[in-house]
Amino acid sequence: MKRPFVTLSALALAAFVLPSARADDKDVIEYRKHIMNTLNEQSAALGQILSTVVPDDNAVAHINAIALTASTALKAFEPKVPGGQAKPDVWANWADFSKRMNEFAQRTAQAAKVAKEQGKEAALSNILDQLTCKSCHEVYREDKKDK
Amino acid sequence: MKRPFVTLSALALAAFVLPSARADDKDVIEYRKHIMNTLNEQSAALGQILSTVVPDDNAVAHINAIALTASTALKAFEPKVPGGQAKPDVWANWADFSKRMNEFAQRTAQAAKVAKEQGKEAALSNILDQLTCKSCHEVYREDKKDK
Repeated sequence: MKRPFVTLSALALAAFVLPSARADDKDVIEYRKHIMNTLNEQSAALGQILSTVVPDDNAVAHINAIALTASTALKAFEPKVPGGQAKPDVWANWADFSKRMNEFAQRTAQAAKVAKEQGKEAALSNILDQLTCKSCHEVYREDKKDK
Repeated sequence: MKRPFVTLSALALAAFVLPSARADDKDVIEYRKHIMNTLNEQSAALGQILSTVVPDDNAVAHINAIALTASTALKAFEPKVPGGQAKPDVWANWADFSKRMNEFAQRTAQAAKVAKEQGKEAALSNILDQLTCKSCHEVYREDKKDK
């Protein structure tokens, strides 16, 4: 009679633990989407400034917001929870992924420093070299948006 | 023969000027969406931290990003271009709208100051009082998302 007991226990455990675990995974995925979406929105705003279709009054603030958000991004990927647009390679190649993400944070922090010390013209002049989004997305992001 | 000439000139002018004017308006609307979407994403991330479904490591960065973005928001609404989710009341009641937006920027800057000087626990304890998004959205934002 031991087997059915174990099975029932396992089922009972699953009933209590699995839904909760799934909810946690959903939260983890949602959280990193908020961060990556922020980077996307702020980069797009900066892109509009670079293409001169909107005034550049907020340029430095956008650079600072990108640097700030870049500094929060790696933490959001630390839980090993595939899903959203993140490819499993993020965790399979964690050393490379985290190196790239840290470099992105450092480069954008440097751009923010240039903006503070030398002004927005200097910071904007090579900002596209600091926004290494594409090279990393090509490797670690699914092309299509999930629902 | 003057009238047809004037009419043709007006049409020619419209052909050159109107599409460009429309493109500008589209840019203006897109730009402020990037800013308001950033506030939305960062507030949602902070909301997840407040409801303890994700760790609070990035709490101060989120507060800073909100304060920084709040400081850029009013500028994005200065061009009088209704559209997106902005109700025409934004410009009809500009004195009230800009007062509220400036207060939002000041309150979130204050929260960022508290976070810096007293730590994240102190800043998080009353952050919801500083995020006055809802009261303003109820008056100035269309409920439904535009396409």
